[in-house]
Amino acid sequence: MRSKLFVPGGRPDLFAKAYASAADAVSFDLEDAVLEEGKATARADVATFVATRQRNGKRVIVRVNAPGTPHFDADLAAIVGAGPDLINVPKLESAQQVQAVAAALEKSGPGPCAPRLLLNIETPRGLRAAAEIAAAHPRVAGLQLGLGDLFEAQGIRRDDPANVHAAMFAVAMAAAEAGVWACDGAHPDFRDPAAFEREARMAQGLGFVGKSCIHPRQVEWAHAVFTPDEQALAWARRVVAAAAEARAQSRGAFAVDGRMVDPPYLRRAERLLAQAGEP
Amino acid sequence: MRSKLFVPGGRPDLFAKAYASAADAVSFDLEDAVLEEGKATARADVATFVATRQRNGKRVIVRVNAPGTPHFDADLAAIVGAGPDLINVPKLESAQQVQAVAAALEKSGPGPCAPRLLLNIETPRGLRAAAEIAAAHPRVAGLQLGLGDLFEAQGIRRDDPANVHAAMFAVAMAAAEAGVWACDGAHPDFRDPAAFEREARMAQGLGFVGKSCIHPRQVEWAHAVFTPDEQALAWARRVVAAAAEARAQSRGAFAVDGRMVDPPYLRRAERLLAQAGEP
Amino acid sequence: MRSKLFVPGGRPDLFAKAYASAADAVSFDLEDAVLEEGKATARADVATFVATRQRNGKRVIVRVNAPGTPHFDADLAAIVGAGPDLINVPKLESAQQVQAVAAALEKSGPGPCAPRLLLNIETPRGLRAAAEIAAAHPRVAGLQLGLGDLFEAQGIRRDDPANVHAAMFAVAMAAAEAGVWACDGAHPDFRDPAAFEREARMAQGLGFVGKSCIHPRQVEWAHAVFTPDEQALAWARRVVAAAAEARAQSRGAFAVDGRMVDPPYLRRAERLLAQAGEP
Repeated sequence: MRSKLFVPGGRPDLFAKAYASAADAVSFDLEDAVLEEGKATARADVATFVATRQRNGKRVIVRVNAPGTPHFDADLAAIVGAGPDLINVPKLESAQQVQAVAAALEKSGPGPCAPRLLLNIETPRGLRAAAEIAAAHPRVAGLQLGLGDLFEAQGIRRDDPANVHAAMFAVAMAAAEAGVWACDGAHPDFRDPAAFEREARMAQGLGFVGKSCIHPRQVEWAHAVFTPDEQALAWARRVVAAAAEARAQSRGAFAVDGRMVDPPYLRRAERLLAQAGEP
Repeated sequence: MRSKLFVPGGRPDLFAKAYASAADAVSFDLEDAVLEEGKATARADVATFVATRQRNGKRVIVRVNAPGTPHFDADLAAIVGAGPDLINVPKLESAQQVQAVAAALEKSGPGPCAPRLLLNIETPRGLRAAAEIAAAHPRVAGLQLGLGDLFEAQGIRRDDPANVHAAMFAVAMAAAEAGVWACDGAHPDFRDPAAFEREARMAQGLGFVGKSCIHPRQVEWAHAVFTPDEQALAWARRVVAAAAEARAQSRGAFAVDGRMVDPPYLRRAERLLAQAGEP
Repeated sequence: MRSKLFVPGGRPDLFAKAYASAADAVSFDLEDAVLEEGKATARADVATFVATRQRNGKRVIVRVNAPGTPHFDADLAAIVGAGPDLINVPKLESAQQVQAVAAALEKSGPGPCAPRLLLNIETPRGLRAAAEIAAAHPRVAGLQLGLGDLFEAQGIRRDDPANVHAAMFAVAMAAAEAGVWACDGAHPDFRDPAAFEREARMAQGLGFVGKSCIHPRQVEWAHAVFTPDEQALAWARRVVAAAAEARAQSRGAFAVDGRMVDPPYLRRAERLLAQAGEP
């Protein structure tokens, strides 16, 4: 899921176009992009579109309103039945909240095929509890970092890469500990490819799988960063080959391109090849 | 509180001048600036000056010795009655310590007008517990980062901005989670405006409200960094105006200067204008 | 312990040479450098070499397999009796694990002369629990950061200094809180002195005592970074002299080279001089 295109839930005129876009996933938003007076209509429009869509291989995500808001229960009830792949839940701050969301999902949902959860880390408390949140329930698929809420509301500058890195590193470690993936949030400036790429490269270098997009043109910027490159794949093939050779010679550690390679490097190489669909 | 000028408690000859300075706050120090043999005299001199000062709009802070030292109880008893705005408590490491300080304050103090607490985070344990410390009691007004103790005593270089940033980010998140402000500590080199400014800008970019000063000349360096600039205020006015327009058109998200603006950005803009006294 | 040279436990032909090297410590590895089928032989070879070595002032470390692997108990039983200075335990993730290791050490070991523990922080869970791990038992001598496991297995880039710094800072704080030392792990590229030095300088600047080496040529690179330099020692002497003078004049704070010096700076200076063997 290299790219994840946001669509405002209140703009049904944009749904089909977003769904047909090049993005790996489309994320219908019932939260911040929809004003209070439009919540009910947006919920119904999104549920209808998701339920009746032609399957086209794209992952479908719906961002509901946060637990504790008056919209959460109605959002969940309407959306679960429509069969999205993932439900994106904003502003999580504790493992208990995640468990309550998962329980509500069981109640509303169609059992084993119920959607998995993509959980937003976007408050200071959520960032501190990120590892517990990620590990709170087997239905958690990943964490998503939300810098708008985390930084802007506190007067923290997003254009200082050190600020962004500190939050990303915390989310990367939390997701890795729980064995779920980390996904980067959106960059708000859709006219600035350099700023988008800087954040995306930082996230990619921390093991994030992809980045949210708020404008269709950001999708290709995301793909440019998160598609494994041929050079990395070639390295991975050399490592796997050298490991086979070392094993044949009963050696545990071995060098590739002048670097000592041991089990963790081998695991990285194998993972890269698996992502690219190589045996 | 953009600037906070330290005055050694053992130098009563400097009190009046510091109190008349341009600093937003003056902080009388009974801790590190005073030798053991001078503690009792300094305490009495500071209490007298604070109790009898002409109110001039400047915030008055007294740094007492740390809880657990033989001076803490006497410091608190003498200072509370003098009516400072804030008591600055060094080397906090747990929520329990803060609650004990608050309880001691109730015992010594004049009830609802008792001073609030500015708590120093300046040990590795304190940094780890910063969020609990900040949230430990409603009397907590803010956290203050102390890099001298945190770094120097561990052999950690302060001239590496990455080191400073990691500590500042942790304090920024802890303060934001508790809803209290974060204040930066002092920079020890009063002849190096560039180093002061580098730390101050990093702190400002993390939402800190101001920086401690150990020399009067640092006060204007602090004000240059922590006074909201006209460009930021103009941006905030544009965001608020665009939000009103979007709301009139029932749209949740909208763009300003090519950036998508949603609720957290709007909150930032409103906060900035409130700080500057605009309606 | 500025340098710590790894020797594969399965290469007894290299033991004597490594032991005679310029490294401050030699670390025999029974874990990642040894394949499953070679574990028993390596264990016996290392135990024999360590037990029968001529004492030469070098610190002797053995890295055993992780607790929970089928090799851990046998490794500990064989190695403790050989009398290494330190046992290096990989992949620690909780204080309970450390206490179990310490208890096993008591059972296998020769009482008060039993080796102390060097504990590897090399998983996201271990990094989060690093402070508890460091403080878990009085036998803990230090923490060692392992970036290979922590980063490579998660797809995190090690060539981004910001990634490395975030992990190092967390380990530095955890070790400082517990009062144990922090030691940096190995850099895998033994042909790249600049990359080694970059990591080593970052670690040194965070108070780490030294760095692991996987190739003899890295030993002098480590010494170049971790040997206290004459300039720092000269500064420390000036600080101690100025402190004595200030004390004679009953002043608590004083300036050296234009920087305000207070107790933490004085502690740093005294520590540096003590490390260099000055009174």
